[in-house]
Amino acid sequence: MRAAVMRDSKIVVDTLPDPEPQQGETLVRTIVCGICGSDLHALKHTRLMVEASLEAGAPFVMDPERDVVMGHEFCAEIVDHGPNTSTRLKAGTQVVSVPMVFRGGGIQGVGYSNDVPGGYGELMVLAEPLLLQVPNGLTADHAALTEPMAVGVHAVAMSRLEKQDAAIVVGAGPVGLAVIAALKLQQVEPIIAADFSPLRRSLAEQQGAHVVVDPKERSPFAAATEVAAARPTVVFEAVGVPGILQGIMKEAPRNARIVVVGVCMQEDRIKPMVAIGKELSMQFVLGYTPEEFAQTLQAIADGRIDVVPLITGRVGVEGVAGAFEELAEPDRHAKILVEPGRR
Amino acid sequence: MRAAVMRDSKIVVDTLPDPEPQQGETLVRTIVCGICGSDLHALKHTRLMVEASLEAGAPFVMDPERDVVMGHEFCAEIVDHGPNTSTRLKAGTQVVSVPMVFRGGGIQGVGYSNDVPGGYGELMVLAEPLLLQVPNGLTADHAALTEPMAVGVHAVAMSRLEKQDAAIVVGAGPVGLAVIAALKLQQVEPIIAADFSPLRRSLAEQQGAHVVVDPKERSPFAAATEVAAARPTVVFEAVGVPGILQGIMKEAPRNARIVVVGVCMQEDRIKPMVAIGKELSMQFVLGYTPEEFAQTLQAIADGRIDVVPLITGRVGVEGVAGAFEELAEPDRHAKILVEPGRR
Repeated sequence: MRAAVMRDSKIVVDTLPDPEPQQGETLVRTIVCGICGSDLHALKHTRLMVEASLEAGAPFVMDPERDVVMGHEFCAEIVDHGPNTSTRLKAGTQVVSVPMVFRGGGIQGVGYSNDVPGGYGELMVLAEPLLLQVPNGLTADHAALTEPMAVGVHAVAMSRLEKQDAAIVVGAGPVGLAVIAALKLQQVEPIIAADFSPLRRSLAEQQGAHVVVDPKERSPFAAATEVAAARPTVVFEAVGVPGILQGIMKEAPRNARIVVVGVCMQEDRIKPMVAIGKELSMQFVLGYTPEEFAQTLQAIADGRIDVVPLITGRVGVEGVAGAFEELAEPDRHAKILVEPGRR
Repeated sequence: MRAAVMRDSKIVVDTLPDPEPQQGETLVRTIVCGICGSDLHALKHTRLMVEASLEAGAPFVMDPERDVVMGHEFCAEIVDHGPNTSTRLKAGTQVVSVPMVFRGGGIQGVGYSNDVPGGYGELMVLAEPLLLQVPNGLTADHAALTEPMAVGVHAVAMSRLEKQDAAIVVGAGPVGLAVIAALKLQQVEPIIAADFSPLRRSLAEQQGAHVVVDPKERSPFAAATEVAAARPTVVFEAVGVPGILQGIMKEAPRNARIVVVGVCMQEDRIKPMVAIGKELSMQFVLGYTPEEFAQTLQAIADGRIDVVPLITGRVGVEGVAGAFEELAEPDRHAKILVEPGRR
């Protein structure tokens, strides 16, 4: 199969052997796959990511010396079922899936493994029990956004958000936008979003933010004080770079709950006294449950989450390397979709 | 009055002007006052503490160039009421109090202020509305331990502990011991405590820990896995030095809740990916509410919290400097009481 491959810290196009479904797995043809910020991180900081994953017991363990086909935000079409599968879904059915397979008694991440290629290639193998049929009328493009939007649904579910809470979302990249969409789904008001990029601020408004600010001009915490004075505050950290957590700790009001959904792969520095003095709490989150994934798919199908504005680009496998570079510029794109079958 | 004074980063004995009660304040004579680890920190890191307090909006703002009489774990006897007080409690009544006064529209910490001396001096002024009468039969020594034990009661209240949770207490100094006592009060089982010091491990058992470990020999997390496998885990960080938080993050099981009750005044380093991968949460806590303070006094009076083993030393004001040095050795003492009236 043709695929965009991570090799020697670069993205190259090559023809690889087709993956073969093992016990309980289904072979699928990738229709479309979104590029995730974590993939940009993984390309830049492969060793850091592997090291941190090992420490955290997370299933993203790759040998950087060997090829990896990334891509975990996909919609695909069933080609064939492997051994020990239920075959409840026929060939040709469009599906999405939590991107993991079960091998050797463990979990491997689809797209974060040397052995389980992701959606930047023409073919994938997926865990048959995790396959979800794309509801009638939902396009593959929109279904592929289930995965990134589920990250927001999960972050909000983990936030212990209550009726009267105000929400601040720091960073309106794909993760922040997913959080905003999930907050809107829960009818949270007000939602205050901050991003340096005009494009992202505009997308934040479209996803449901009531107030958007450029942090160069105004702190989202000042904005929150103005529109929701003295209400409990939940802050979603959706940037994931060193220093941002301490910045939020410093500005957050007393008793604020910080949900860390941005993925900072480097070591970070904090001043615990600042958090102690204000009795802050931090909930670190990752991924989603299979139930949240299914709920997100349904919410997109019902139009309760509108992913249309998020899709800002589209490439074939030859365009992946360039797309990675373009995505480093926050004012040009939200989500670029890869179509591995496109010639 | 005679007092042990923090002056030029040393503890010296001097005679200072008697404090005068302002609006709403009561003049009291200190009977006894415990030495707190935070006072050791404050002596060593005065500027760091003031800086962090300013950032956190906490009321511990002192000018290190001017004298401070520390001491905030006291039992005292009413001498006289100042203007605008209810005089509900007569002179001679033994009282304890949340160590703060209200001045100029703000809060000042008793013992962490240039203007409001603490219990290492013969006289203090306290906020009359906060005074709690020591119940009949409770000695001043034991009543003075209300403040440090309330820290544990608050930390446990903030931990969102549930019936089936296992608790790990890292560090069995006065803060860790207070947490253990508060966990026992809530009938939490098992309580697993870790400390390098044999004295502290023995005190941890007396306060109610079911398993105590020397971290040199065995990780408390391994012990928890053995006695409470797969149960949700709440970890209380009661050490408060750089590095301990990352160490706990690394060893903690998935979804563990970490309650940070140790006060680390220096900058600290963490690897967020470790917390993200395991979806850890951290609740930073400080102090207690007036209600928790009153509940703690009552629990000590009822014998539900036994503070007797915690008192390991007793000095006059001349002995405070030496006691600070002795307390740096974790195997000699838990709580040393200062009796400012002792000659």
